[in-house]
Amino acid sequence: MYSIESLEEFTRKVFMKMGCSDEDARVITDVFIAAELRGLPSHGMLRIKDYYQLWQAGRINVKPHVRIVHESPGTAVVDGDGAIGMVAAAKSMQIAIEKAGKTGTGWVSTRNSNHYGIAGYYSMMALPHDMIGISMTIANPLVAPTFSISRMLGTNPIAVAVPAGKHPPFVADFSTTPIARGKLAVAAKKGEKVPLGYVQDADGIPSDDPDIITRGGSMVTLGGTREQGSHKGYCLSAIVDIFSAVLSGAGFGPYCPPSVAFLPVKEETAGRGTGHFFGAMRIDGFQKAEEFKSKMDEWIDTFRAAKPARGQDRVLIPGDPERENEERIRREGVDLLVPVQQELKQVADELGIPFLS
Amino acid sequence: MYSIESLEEFTRKVFMKMGCSDEDARVITDVFIAAELRGLPSHGMLRIKDYYQLWQAGRINVKPHVRIVHESPGTAVVDGDGAIGMVAAAKSMQIAIEKAGKTGTGWVSTRNSNHYGIAGYYSMMALPHDMIGISMTIANPLVAPTFSISRMLGTNPIAVAVPAGKHPPFVADFSTTPIARGKLAVAAKKGEKVPLGYVQDADGIPSDDPDIITRGGSMVTLGGTREQGSHKGYCLSAIVDIFSAVLSGAGFGPYCPPSVAFLPVKEETAGRGTGHFFGAMRIDGFQKAEEFKSKMDEWIDTFRAAKPARGQDRVLIPGDPERENEERIRREGVDLLVPVQQELKQVADELGIPFLS
Repeated sequence: MYSIESLEEFTRKVFMKMGCSDEDARVITDVFIAAELRGLPSHGMLRIKDYYQLWQAGRINVKPHVRIVHESPGTAVVDGDGAIGMVAAAKSMQIAIEKAGKTGTGWVSTRNSNHYGIAGYYSMMALPHDMIGISMTIANPLVAPTFSISRMLGTNPIAVAVPAGKHPPFVADFSTTPIARGKLAVAAKKGEKVPLGYVQDADGIPSDDPDIITRGGSMVTLGGTREQGSHKGYCLSAIVDIFSAVLSGAGFGPYCPPSVAFLPVKEETAGRGTGHFFGAMRIDGFQKAEEFKSKMDEWIDTFRAAKPARGQDRVLIPGDPERENEERIRREGVDLLVPVQQELKQVADELGIPFLS
Repeated sequence: MYSIESLEEFTRKVFMKMGCSDEDARVITDVFIAAELRGLPSHGMLRIKDYYQLWQAGRINVKPHVRIVHESPGTAVVDGDGAIGMVAAAKSMQIAIEKAGKTGTGWVSTRNSNHYGIAGYYSMMALPHDMIGISMTIANPLVAPTFSISRMLGTNPIAVAVPAGKHPPFVADFSTTPIARGKLAVAAKKGEKVPLGYVQDADGIPSDDPDIITRGGSMVTLGGTREQGSHKGYCLSAIVDIFSAVLSGAGFGPYCPPSVAFLPVKEETAGRGTGHFFGAMRIDGFQKAEEFKSKMDEWIDTFRAAKPARGQDRVLIPGDPERENEERIRREGVDLLVPVQQELKQVADELGIPFLS
């Protein structure tokens, strides 16, 4: 078990050693730690090696000039200048929040960025401002549209955070596939099989091998099959792609620059880097914030009181499992998988910094 | 087969006879006809009887004063004054478009409305303005959250329309359940069974009876089961509910006023009427509209070129099937189900207007 503090210190050192500023290393670390705390190890320490390899390959800029390249009172396109995703994303969300302060809502489409970690982190930045926060991003092209075997889209997550009053906020953070890609990576690292309905092989035959996506297979969209609504998952994923990449001028769909080593970097490109999309909506653009938050408490109470199906304890509110994880993990610490420990040890050795103790 | 013109004339007469203004009857008719043309009869003429019954029950206001009750430069809450949904919705989307003209984007949450027909209609209103259009709505509470048997949510559709250049626009319009409720109604009217994974009985046991929802059963969210991601469908549906009903002050979740006769009107309420949410984003708030539209053409070409899975002809772009339906149905006319013809005949007789010939 590793304490949160030790992981924090280690992660900050890794990114500072790569050349990031204090402030950028702090934001990057904050997002990694949030992923571990919220029980999403698929987006936590396991990913450090990926960023390290991208840095080695000269594919990320540790001294980026993240800037607005086009704007209106309520909108902007931000160019991330090849930054580590967290740096471009946190700044973009900050801009959305500032614009919302002036016009009621703010919307930012970001290009020339990289993998930004957990989508929920940025949506939650809006909460202290009594705003609803929205965050979405494209990702490694590994997902096939309905009726296809071509890897055209990422797992393209959507996060929406809504403030409440006496209750903790509503925080939905979900990929537009039945399972997140990182969770397949965790299963593969553990040598486990996955249920049918997550991935298909290169011929489109359903597979239970989480590693099939490293051998030409693909993930399917939320819904799984056409009959069960996979075309709706395809629509969602496509919307994330258009908002994040076409609006910003990033590399859309199959042109999203890969953040995993098993995908080749395409020669051809349709735009600059990875794209994200952020939104912030002032509650008081619609009604008094206090009244809304009290109504959200009522919403939460109503949904918590839904009758569980047989064999189930309770009905969850989006954000419940992650918050409960956070309480537990802050207390107990983080249990890193052995392969992840080995990877981090190697990164530490190569960068010449002390490994986690 | 009925011609579009004859359906149009009949529908307009029905609503004018109920007391709607010329203009309101025209909008209502336009949305019904759009549903038939796009091949969504579940939201077309089949629904006229529902509105007629609501009118008979004194539950819709045919002379509404639809108005803004709260606003900021880029946001508003609109009160529909008990209007037929199409009337409140079209006016709300128009306000979102006007606000987008000034600040870059416009967002309207609408309360005190009723069932508004197809979500896609309103999102497409943004297209001629070189804007992205967004539309969502709550609906009859018939959907159980993950792990539950309580009917807490509607099929809560989301529609997003994105302009393209030489190609027709991207138009995604989908419920956040594996299948739309109206499609269950069509299956039930035809006496057909449905695949497992759409509905469960009152005890939470999966059922193939589309009519089970009239006997205490419930629909499930997109994803179907927890293992296949139904919690993501629940998140989506909850987001639609919060944006449409909590932000506006409508009756959220289980308090959405039913538009079908088999659901009782609840005594208790959490707000006013049905809620919707609309958004319009100016393309040129992000980049030059012409460049974006040309990039969308490239996006569409790229996705059309995805390799079909074995046994499939082609990969679709959201909006393709509906557009192809429209071309065919405009030519061939509309084939109304016999029970729908009978219902419409009864409505016509009771209102004293000539039935379709």
